[in-house]
Amino acid sequence: MKFSSKVKKCGLSPMRKFHPYAVAAMEAGKKIYHLNIGQPDIETPPQYFEAVRNFQLPVLEYAPSPGLPVLIDAIQKYYDNLGMHFEKDEILITTGGSEALQIVFNCILDDGDEILIPEPFYPNYNTMVSTCGAVIHPVPTTPQEGYHYADRAKIEAGINERTRAIVCTNPGNPTGSVLTPEEMRMMVDIAKEHNLFIIGDEAYREFVYAGEPLQSLGEFEDAAENVIVIDTVSKRFSACGARIGCIISRNKELMAEALKYCQCRLSVATLDQVASAALYDVGPEYFAAVREEYKLRRDTVAAKLKEIPGVICECPRGAFYFMAALPVDSADEFQKWLLTDFEDNGETVMFAPAESFYATSGKGVNEIRIAYVLKQKDLERAMDLLAMGLKAYNER
Amino acid sequence: MKFSSKVKKCGLSPMRKFHPYAVAAMEAGKKIYHLNIGQPDIETPPQYFEAVRNFQLPVLEYAPSPGLPVLIDAIQKYYDNLGMHFEKDEILITTGGSEALQIVFNCILDDGDEILIPEPFYPNYNTMVSTCGAVIHPVPTTPQEGYHYADRAKIEAGINERTRAIVCTNPGNPTGSVLTPEEMRMMVDIAKEHNLFIIGDEAYREFVYAGEPLQSLGEFEDAAENVIVIDTVSKRFSACGARIGCIISRNKELMAEALKYCQCRLSVATLDQVASAALYDVGPEYFAAVREEYKLRRDTVAAKLKEIPGVICECPRGAFYFMAALPVDSADEFQKWLLTDFEDNGETVMFAPAESFYATSGKGVNEIRIAYVLKQKDLERAMDLLAMGLKAYNER
Repeated sequence: MKFSSKVKKCGLSPMRKFHPYAVAAMEAGKKIYHLNIGQPDIETPPQYFEAVRNFQLPVLEYAPSPGLPVLIDAIQKYYDNLGMHFEKDEILITTGGSEALQIVFNCILDDGDEILIPEPFYPNYNTMVSTCGAVIHPVPTTPQEGYHYADRAKIEAGINERTRAIVCTNPGNPTGSVLTPEEMRMMVDIAKEHNLFIIGDEAYREFVYAGEPLQSLGEFEDAAENVIVIDTVSKRFSACGARIGCIISRNKELMAEALKYCQCRLSVATLDQVASAALYDVGPEYFAAVREEYKLRRDTVAAKLKEIPGVICECPRGAFYFMAALPVDSADEFQKWLLTDFEDNGETVMFAPAESFYATSGKGVNEIRIAYVLKQKDLERAMDLLAMGLKAYNER
Repeated sequence: MKFSSKVKKCGLSPMRKFHPYAVAAMEAGKKIYHLNIGQPDIETPPQYFEAVRNFQLPVLEYAPSPGLPVLIDAIQKYYDNLGMHFEKDEILITTGGSEALQIVFNCILDDGDEILIPEPFYPNYNTMVSTCGAVIHPVPTTPQEGYHYADRAKIEAGINERTRAIVCTNPGNPTGSVLTPEEMRMMVDIAKEHNLFIIGDEAYREFVYAGEPLQSLGEFEDAAENVIVIDTVSKRFSACGARIGCIISRNKELMAEALKYCQCRLSVATLDQVASAALYDVGPEYFAAVREEYKLRRDTVAAKLKEIPGVICECPRGAFYFMAALPVDSADEFQKWLLTDFEDNGETVMFAPAESFYATSGKGVNEIRIAYVLKQKDLERAMDLLAMGLKAYNER
């Protein structure tokens, strides 16, 4: 049987690559500390489960294709509180930020088109862009410069007649980099000057640790035609399993095209929309507490990494990831070895080797992404295991 | 800004076309009987809401990309009870049957490919196929023949070197046609002989009214490489808002390609999967009662339609739709007139004009789809309104 040439180009998730080795290690009785995936251990606010328990309609009906009004209202209010106003028809509810990205890419990318994305980037962009028949044109960065990409010359060097959009994952996954207001302005200006969409993937908006006000590309009302914001409740409320996200844009034509997709898949899950609307009732103290907890974790990882000889790493300003270059030839080989040949008191550690976060072949081979999603004590132990593992690996 | 040529080819949902007229009619105080959409009024089994209320985990985590084991188990058992066995990795959970279709089409259709679909068909296939860069090659049918399509010559006439798959929506939406076991065998044989996928969209499997055993293309183990089953809890359990469906196939390469899509959108909503697994605990008496109710409704519509002069309609054997040809030039114009110019005691009726259920231009202009999703008494009144409307329309 013949399959689509587009899907053949895609790969399985790099985060799952080491799954068989992890299973073997667990079967051999090893305990694994998982710093490889972005699944937080923070409790989901009880408002979610209360709303679900209080749902009283006897028929679980389709929701309207653009989303349930109660959830659109809640999101509108959330942005109003951040000082950005969107009309209700400028918000389309989606099945997670993932579907929001898929819909937007499908609306704006044609066969042979290019989309500019700073590398390293969230690897699922690969499948999402490839299945549209388009390609990612990477904006190169280095660990030595803290993965900084907001540089006019660097960005403009990647723009050509096939370029349709620029993606800003801000705060960055996997880099944790956070744009300054001036850098955001510049990125938006570049998009305007070159008549490109600029997509703000802002899943980690709340996770900034230097007291910055929360920011969004949605602030730039002068770029109404260019700006598309991708949002989700997944990380904001530790509700990854709700699969509730949205597309936000003032570009009416984009929203009309996106609605075609929304109608063709009928609706987003009804109960999850009702419950996600209730999440927006949490007060600012919720975000403050979560931010404090992640900041502590970040500082723990930063301190531990600094003590490991040969590691190159800038302390990230946002999200809950570190990118780090390790003193090894291949992070893939090192991760495999950690699962098959290493242990300390029956324990080992997993992170995400970062080669697949790059589009440029050969880059990132000695880099890893560390997700600081564990409690303080577990995180300390996991980082110690990384240090011990590196020492033992290089002394083999 | 430039948009994808593929999305530009798609249209908005035909079911939404008359929405502005409906709003105006309601604002003018008219009551509308909705026979235009497939949203049943049957209560969702309480097992769903109980499972949701009993969910006790403090963190709403991502589910595994292929689906929650508890739901995969429940679906496996359901098919075992129907006499079909599937391994767990032959079932991938999706966000509704809609995502299942989108993923399958994206896996098997390339630019310029064709997919054979009997017309009239579920109009969302249009957007799903067009966004893959492929086209629907319709298998023509007529109301006079009860929309019968399972004819070897008819099917084979549509197959060419670009054909990749045949879709059997069985029982049919919008036609309500049900394939006999011999017809299913023949359709599968055609797919095997021509090395094509055969996709069984079997959302309405339980809704057959002549005492037939429940059937599925999944029965044909000799066509393991060809058969793909699309399933969903939406109609089976009146749980459209759960957005839980699945892809079922013994074709390992297809399932591996589909898994790439599943991983790229991370997971399906966790709580809806847990609750949908609980739905499979309902006993056979649930299905028997629901089937009895729909059969009654079908017979009501059939009896009423028979009394209306000039209507061409075969009593359908399955699903919960009637296709009918009306004695009017344009069902679109008639529907519009019913909303703007007609009423009886302040009431009118909506159905789905069927032109957009056809790929062949000019077909279906005087046809409608009637969804019998209302209670007996409302259904009778709605059909009387249709009869009165037709009479008044043709006497204008």
